[in-house]
Amino acid sequence: MKLGVLGGGQLGRMLALAGLPLGLKFLFLDPQARPCAADVGQHLQAAYDDEVALARLAREADRATYEFENVPARALQWLARHLPVYPPPRALQVCQDRAAEKTFLRRIGVPTAEFAAADTPGDLEQAVERVGLPAVVKTRRMGYDGKAQRVVRRWEELPAAWEELGAVPVVVEALVPFRRELSVIAVRGLDGATLSYPVVQNHHEDGILRVSLAPAPGLSSGLAAQAQAYVHQALEALDYVGVLCLELFEVEGGLLGNEMAPRVHNSGHWTLEGARTSQFANHVRAVTGLPLGDATPRGCCAMVNLIGERPDFSSVLRVPGAHLHWYGKELRPGRKVGHVTVCADSWGSLAERLEALQARGLRVPGLGVLAGNAESR
Amino acid sequence: MKLGVLGGGQLGRMLALAGLPLGLKFLFLDPQARPCAADVGQHLQAAYDDEVALARLAREADRATYEFENVPARALQWLARHLPVYPPPRALQVCQDRAAEKTFLRRIGVPTAEFAAADTPGDLEQAVERVGLPAVVKTRRMGYDGKAQRVVRRWEELPAAWEELGAVPVVVEALVPFRRELSVIAVRGLDGATLSYPVVQNHHEDGILRVSLAPAPGLSSGLAAQAQAYVHQALEALDYVGVLCLELFEVEGGLLGNEMAPRVHNSGHWTLEGARTSQFANHVRAVTGLPLGDATPRGCCAMVNLIGERPDFSSVLRVPGAHLHWYGKELRPGRKVGHVTVCADSWGSLAERLEALQARGLRVPGLGVLAGNAESR
Repeated sequence: MKLGVLGGGQLGRMLALAGLPLGLKFLFLDPQARPCAADVGQHLQAAYDDEVALARLAREADRATYEFENVPARALQWLARHLPVYPPPRALQVCQDRAAEKTFLRRIGVPTAEFAAADTPGDLEQAVERVGLPAVVKTRRMGYDGKAQRVVRRWEELPAAWEELGAVPVVVEALVPFRRELSVIAVRGLDGATLSYPVVQNHHEDGILRVSLAPAPGLSSGLAAQAQAYVHQALEALDYVGVLCLELFEVEGGLLGNEMAPRVHNSGHWTLEGARTSQFANHVRAVTGLPLGDATPRGCCAMVNLIGERPDFSSVLRVPGAHLHWYGKELRPGRKVGHVTVCADSWGSLAERLEALQARGLRVPGLGVLAGNAESR
Repeated sequence: MKLGVLGGGQLGRMLALAGLPLGLKFLFLDPQARPCAADVGQHLQAAYDDEVALARLAREADRATYEFENVPARALQWLARHLPVYPPPRALQVCQDRAAEKTFLRRIGVPTAEFAAADTPGDLEQAVERVGLPAVVKTRRMGYDGKAQRVVRRWEELPAAWEELGAVPVVVEALVPFRRELSVIAVRGLDGATLSYPVVQNHHEDGILRVSLAPAPGLSSGLAAQAQAYVHQALEALDYVGVLCLELFEVEGGLLGNEMAPRVHNSGHWTLEGARTSQFANHVRAVTGLPLGDATPRGCCAMVNLIGERPDFSSVLRVPGAHLHWYGKELRPGRKVGHVTVCADSWGSLAERLEALQARGLRVPGLGVLAGNAESR
């Protein structure tokens, strides 16, 4: 079976590394000249809405998935008329529009921060009036890794924020004082079976994920169950097939849904070594109709992103429990070029290993949270 | 860094799947038109001793390794004058000749069955006189998977055996009444660091490995330590770099060395899920000069080869703890086309899972051994 993938970045590459042992072949549609997934599959260089390329993908692949969020929904809908496409195009559509996404979350019972959409500068003022200040103004579409959003603290900043974001439709969200950022990854098979990985804690800097800790240290079992219930509600409501990530804020009094990613997600990379079946293997199993694999975690695990830096590999691998995942991409400032996972049998031991990584020059922000939890497990 | 690999079969494919996350690229030299490793690296189609191809490999790759035992040693020696080649060509030379191999094992203190080399029919009679009957007559070179060997029980069978094996130099080995077949895989880094995986028990049929159980159920700690000591002696004596497999017989009174494979080995495939770092990752780490990774096993694990059969993938993956590794090769009778690993927390649970695999139509011979050990762990 050949799996067509829209997008040929590291997520596509890791999907193929997980899917090749299941006998799959991969075809990546990606406009770049040499995307890193091309090492592990065929590459079709074309724009995501190039009809000739889409027709070829539909002809050569047995089913299609996507690893990139900003694929035109129309391209997916076209494909879906010619071959099975999972996750369902409707899920991508919902996730591509921050207003539709939050509306969806509320409809299925996931609380969110106050928000309001705005298509014009006039709308924007009304939206801010409704939501209050401080607020985050985000473009409704095409944002990722903290791009395309501005925090606004005073009314006078609104016109500049509107212009900076490109004078496009936006959504205004209340700036929520959260305790921490969490995410939960779940997967639904073609047969409707579902399972989920433990909730993880994420540490972002400048909107880019830096570190994930799995399972989220010290999270109450009540909140963990709540997060699991939310993501399962989303899976069912979307008649979903594949891996879905739901990002949440832990706030005074509970959880707030922030956003969803209808694909394998950076906050699930720890599953490569940290769970019995990785998110990549489970996504591939789901979209090709195979039974899902055991998502049980193995001890405590951390994922540390390598962003615009190439550490000394030997130095990293000398830390006990450390595994390196280099994507084979060119180094550029701010670019995700790899990640390191570190597993251990206890939080105390994990903290020591992460400190050892730091001592070897790797940036591991957000480690403070482990100080309080080192004894709790 | 680009790793040149002589041989492009499933071992090469799994080396690449383990090495790609370490940022490596792969170049496979293989005479076949479409070897299965070509899915995950560049393929150079040529004979192993094609000088133009070897020169190109030496030019394009940063170092070389091999995944196939019957590469001409001269080709490796030529390569070794142009780029680092690991494991060292001398190791391959020793392993390619069954008489040299057994002589080497004895020299480093590993006992073996009685054996004698024979280059002519006259030699053969003398060798059999020395070793006694019944005996196994094997070609000195080019045998694998039980090919190129004959059991001889009576003198009258000697001439036919000689002819059947091609009238080539042979080695005669005493047919040892063994309790079971074991193997132990160890790895030595470029810096001389070594580590080893637990000893495993192997079940062969018609000379082809069918099932490995890791760690070998019920093996005494004394014998396990003995096996580890033997393989480490071999690593040191050969100034080895990479993964080395030593196959042993457990006999009344101890262990006998049978043969070595200077490469990743089928009896180590269980490490993909069953150990914290797989044999493939550790081989790649060793030959590229990276630190070795933790070889600690995860519970009990079985590896079941898929030989000339394509099971229903869904059916296999529905068994808890089962992982499938399909090599993407064409089906042919007697051909290794994939394997299944099954891990569990106890021998009892592993036995249940293997029985479930059998019930789904997979052949899992040699399961009887678990009956006695189900309670022992």
